[in-house]
Amino acid sequence: MITRNYLLILITAIMTVTGSLPVAAQEVTLQSVQAETAFVFNTLLFLIGGFLVMFMAAGFAMLEAGLVRSKNVSMQCLKNIALYSISGIMFWCLGYSLMYSGVDGGYLGTFVPYSWPDAGAANEGDYAVASDWFFQMVFCAATASIVSGTVAERIKLWPFLLFVAVLTGVIYPISGSWKWGGGWLDAQGFQDFAGSTIVHSVGGWAALTGALILEARKGKYSKDGKVQAMPGSNIPLATLGTFILWLGWFGFNGGSQLALGDNANASDVSRIFVNTNLAAAGGVIAAMFLMQIIYRKQDVTLALNGALAGLVSITAEPLMPSPFLSILIGSVGGLIVVIAVPVLDKLKIDDVVGAIPVHLLAGIWGTIAVVFSNTDATLNAQLTGILAYGAFTVVASTTLWLLLKYTIGLRVSEEEEYLGLDKSEIGVEAYPEFV
Amino acid sequence: MITRNYLLILITAIMTVTGSLPVAAQEVTLQSVQAETAFVFNTLLFLIGGFLVMFMAAGFAMLEAGLVRSKNVSMQCLKNIALYSISGIMFWCLGYSLMYSGVDGGYLGTFVPYSWPDAGAANEGDYAVASDWFFQMVFCAATASIVSGTVAERIKLWPFLLFVAVLTGVIYPISGSWKWGGGWLDAQGFQDFAGSTIVHSVGGWAALTGALILEARKGKYSKDGKVQAMPGSNIPLATLGTFILWLGWFGFNGGSQLALGDNANASDVSRIFVNTNLAAAGGVIAAMFLMQIIYRKQDVTLALNGALAGLVSITAEPLMPSPFLSILIGSVGGLIVVIAVPVLDKLKIDDVVGAIPVHLLAGIWGTIAVVFSNTDATLNAQLTGILAYGAFTVVASTTLWLLLKYTIGLRVSEEEEYLGLDKSEIGVEAYPEFV
Amino acid sequence: MITRNYLLILITAIMTVTGSLPVAAQEVTLQSVQAETAFVFNTLLFLIGGFLVMFMAAGFAMLEAGLVRSKNVSMQCLKNIALYSISGIMFWCLGYSLMYSGVDGGYLGTFVPYSWPDAGAANEGDYAVASDWFFQMVFCAATASIVSGTVAERIKLWPFLLFVAVLTGVIYPISGSWKWGGGWLDAQGFQDFAGSTIVHSVGGWAALTGALILEARKGKYSKDGKVQAMPGSNIPLATLGTFILWLGWFGFNGGSQLALGDNANASDVSRIFVNTNLAAAGGVIAAMFLMQIIYRKQDVTLALNGALAGLVSITAEPLMPSPFLSILIGSVGGLIVVIAVPVLDKLKIDDVVGAIPVHLLAGIWGTIAVVFSNTDATLNAQLTGILAYGAFTVVASTTLWLLLKYTIGLRVSEEEEYLGLDKSEIGVEAYPEFV
Repeated sequence: MITRNYLLILITAIMTVTGSLPVAAQEVTLQSVQAETAFVFNTLLFLIGGFLVMFMAAGFAMLEAGLVRSKNVSMQCLKNIALYSISGIMFWCLGYSLMYSGVDGGYLGTFVPYSWPDAGAANEGDYAVASDWFFQMVFCAATASIVSGTVAERIKLWPFLLFVAVLTGVIYPISGSWKWGGGWLDAQGFQDFAGSTIVHSVGGWAALTGALILEARKGKYSKDGKVQAMPGSNIPLATLGTFILWLGWFGFNGGSQLALGDNANASDVSRIFVNTNLAAAGGVIAAMFLMQIIYRKQDVTLALNGALAGLVSITAEPLMPSPFLSILIGSVGGLIVVIAVPVLDKLKIDDVVGAIPVHLLAGIWGTIAVVFSNTDATLNAQLTGILAYGAFTVVASTTLWLLLKYTIGLRVSEEEEYLGLDKSEIGVEAYPEFV
Repeated sequence: MITRNYLLILITAIMTVTGSLPVAAQEVTLQSVQAETAFVFNTLLFLIGGFLVMFMAAGFAMLEAGLVRSKNVSMQCLKNIALYSISGIMFWCLGYSLMYSGVDGGYLGTFVPYSWPDAGAANEGDYAVASDWFFQMVFCAATASIVSGTVAERIKLWPFLLFVAVLTGVIYPISGSWKWGGGWLDAQGFQDFAGSTIVHSVGGWAALTGALILEARKGKYSKDGKVQAMPGSNIPLATLGTFILWLGWFGFNGGSQLALGDNANASDVSRIFVNTNLAAAGGVIAAMFLMQIIYRKQDVTLALNGALAGLVSITAEPLMPSPFLSILIGSVGGLIVVIAVPVLDKLKIDDVVGAIPVHLLAGIWGTIAVVFSNTDATLNAQLTGILAYGAFTVVASTTLWLLLKYTIGLRVSEEEEYLGLDKSEIGVEAYPEFV
Repeated sequence: MITRNYLLILITAIMTVTGSLPVAAQEVTLQSVQAETAFVFNTLLFLIGGFLVMFMAAGFAMLEAGLVRSKNVSMQCLKNIALYSISGIMFWCLGYSLMYSGVDGGYLGTFVPYSWPDAGAANEGDYAVASDWFFQMVFCAATASIVSGTVAERIKLWPFLLFVAVLTGVIYPISGSWKWGGGWLDAQGFQDFAGSTIVHSVGGWAALTGALILEARKGKYSKDGKVQAMPGSNIPLATLGTFILWLGWFGFNGGSQLALGDNANASDVSRIFVNTNLAAAGGVIAAMFLMQIIYRKQDVTLALNGALAGLVSITAEPLMPSPFLSILIGSVGGLIVVIAVPVLDKLKIDDVVGAIPVHLLAGIWGTIAVVFSNTDATLNAQLTGILAYGAFTVVASTTLWLLLKYTIGLRVSEEEEYLGLDKSEIGVEAYPEFV
């Protein structure tokens, strides 16, 4: 042993004296190769996760185009491509730095425009700066997509897009900074892995306030309390939208691991894929069982929303639960949808696509359910987060909706609503030969 | 030379004496970095391949929604999202261990529920356990998707879903274990790279037995031998479904390489992408040429099914053939579709979407065609596999279909069939404003 | 310092003498591990980029199926799946070697059929040969997709497909070789990162000559100069197609970085994702603003084409611009669409889907805009490239269109056009129950 140590010390001494001997240099190089490989993997995770979540914009567009009546379909398509575009521009000029730059335990970041390293230059850190921006931007856009479905068929185009601009440039980034930017809720121990609250509830609260302020579509609720069914015009499009959203959710939750550079992270991303899928499956099956028990019939739109509610429910913690617990968490999401849709109708809250049960209620449920598997989560911190996001988003979006309502106006005229927004505001019918 | 060897021996001696000298330590580290990088690449292949195959569920849904009549479209959408959900749950609670755990040259695995390593833990082996589960699960779901199109427009919802549960939880995993679980057919040298037989023929046999036991849709075949055309309601949706399936097939075949960690494997996955694409292209063009010769017209649905038959044909061996051979193999698949569709009608086998020619017949062809390029394959072993999978699936699924038929019943009433399943079982019409 | 250098020289001397000592061997191994990791990353970039661009075939199919009238939808679906199939086969048997093999500063490559390394063999170079083939093939197919929309609703099936075969097997590969194959325009310093000119303008010129030679659809332009609106039959499909194209463009531009193996390349691919997304967003918003100013209404199809024009505009240089410049470049693309669509109608050039403004005009704009950010680009070289591609494609495709016109004929009869191509050439209606 002494001989070994003596020789080792001797070699080390020589290394120290020479300062640049090959062995030492190689140790650094091996580590740097490892680090660079991890950098590329992490960046690739953001890019793949990012394009999957980007495609969710198409999923929302198809879901909503399928669930509105044919006279409003072109408008819904336009709103969706416009809101995705606005989200990108607002998150570039305001949102990203407001959410991630210099939050330091506080309540918002800075208004410093974000700058990227030059082309051709290696980036510092564990991933490419621009890949992170892209991944975070598509989350921001998803928040806006949630709103458009609820307020469909009666809101004017430009006021809606103004709302989206403020939501994606200011409201979402500020509240997002509280946890993901390292703000005050992060310091409190609030846990929300991929955004059951930060994305889905925030979108859901904004949608709820919009539905309340806009009021219901004409004829939806009669004075004697009857609810007029206004069936969606294209169920296979809504189904396609749901499958696209399901696909995108692998990027949404899997990418939120934020790293793929080693065995442990790759294994965790894989677990997240499995749990995400099983929660959605649980949501579908639970919704179908409950429908069969209550109605003896199957409403396909509730099964689709069951999948989405299962996905929203597992989003706050897709890593820690066992597969079985994931199925349970998603199943409760599915049950929430079947129960909440008629309740909202009783409350005369007109949510055209069911986004409030799916994103707001299942989002709250998922955020609470974190405590079942993540030992870092406390019920107290989770409820604090849910309430904080709720209070802020309700106040901010109510203010904004009302400001729009009493200035440029939010709602189309009764005649325009009757004609359909495609004729009155767009001038292009969605299906000119079918209807 | 002597001097060189002397110095080398001296250095090695020092290394051996010290036991922990930097050079030796680094050799191990370099290998471990290489192994960890390969681990992440392999896992990533499963995750990317997996989400592409998952999206095939949307492809099947759109293909089938486009090819059934409008009165059954909502039902077809519901069946597809439900069957994908059930597949995931069944493959979790039963299928995966039955297919992969302790088969050892035998006929089935064990019923041990599968468990994943804990979150945050590095996994042993060459890829993350959960990524493999995800990839294998979506294959299982694809098998069930094949069945739903053939038996459309007349089967009841819940009996169909019970069939799916047993197919994905028991039948597919047991037969899958024979080859991919390392069972008796693997020992016989049967070759089926990505599942022309194991996935597609099995789905096709299950569909065929279902079609025979359910019998044809009312009015499809009149007593004087005439065939009543029942055209699909939405051709662009069927086209979209086909393109989505084509996209997904890059994951299906490419992911079945099971490794991406080095130059050779990455090069092989790339060959597979090329061959897969060319076989599909050959299927389209061959089908179109044959249609032009026979009918002087083009049936777009046969061109779409030609693509799918080309894809199924190359699935048993997408790696070894040259690009030219891949085009030929796929072309024969396309010809099979054009020839077989009217033959099935003469036999009064009512296959609503053409899944039997595409998945069963082209699957058999593709499994035989392995012998043209893979020297490990023998015609004897291939035919043994085809017959074994056929016999087992026919017996198992016939038993199951009959059990369902004589207990809860398989088929809707004639009146319900006339009305359409959307009105009778779903209560949500797919296109309430168009029809 | 002297001691250090002395020791270093001594160690180096020993290393040189022994020739095979562990340290030197490991340096090689570390470098080879690094190289192999980069190889897999580069290949993966081509495969992921490739499948995203492959999916653009579905995007074009849906965009065009949505923008033609219902009586021509099945035909448009068939043309799109057939053209994608033909592109693959032609690019295999002719195109790839004509474009990339032995161009050496000249005007075309060789007709040597391309061969891949055997299965299981490591490939030389920085990426798998077949992955590059796949990636380049889907670009070739995109060029053909551009043509099909413009000439829709009046061109016969087989002449169109013959045009596609020559376009993808000869015209595109020859002109592509000038820059991407290392031909004469590359030597001149022409810059076109991902193909604003090489793909989009070439497709656009071929479309323009086709529109001129085919002439307008019957009834589109009356003698008194009035333009008859012929609205698309399915706006949500067109919207879906646009979103799919947007998704695919991340592969189109991101993959054109051609490398992902290290920090700098991964960072550059990330920048490209961001710029690509922002240019598309700028195109949408600019088109919407201009429409609002001019028409006080929103034509959703112009907003969709605004996105595509933004994407085409940034394609020639998606790496170097700042995010803000990317928004500007894309915005100009969006403005071009809104301005050019009515101008084309005044010129009685009947472009069914708006492909000429989107791909040709925005492609020219994007190619010029390279000079704003890429210091290697000169206006002279860019204009030389634009003119060279324009002149060659116009001459080649005009010759080909005329050859087809005066032999087998290009255009369906007036009666067939009135009936719709689905009934006259296909025999399968797209929506048999809706219209």
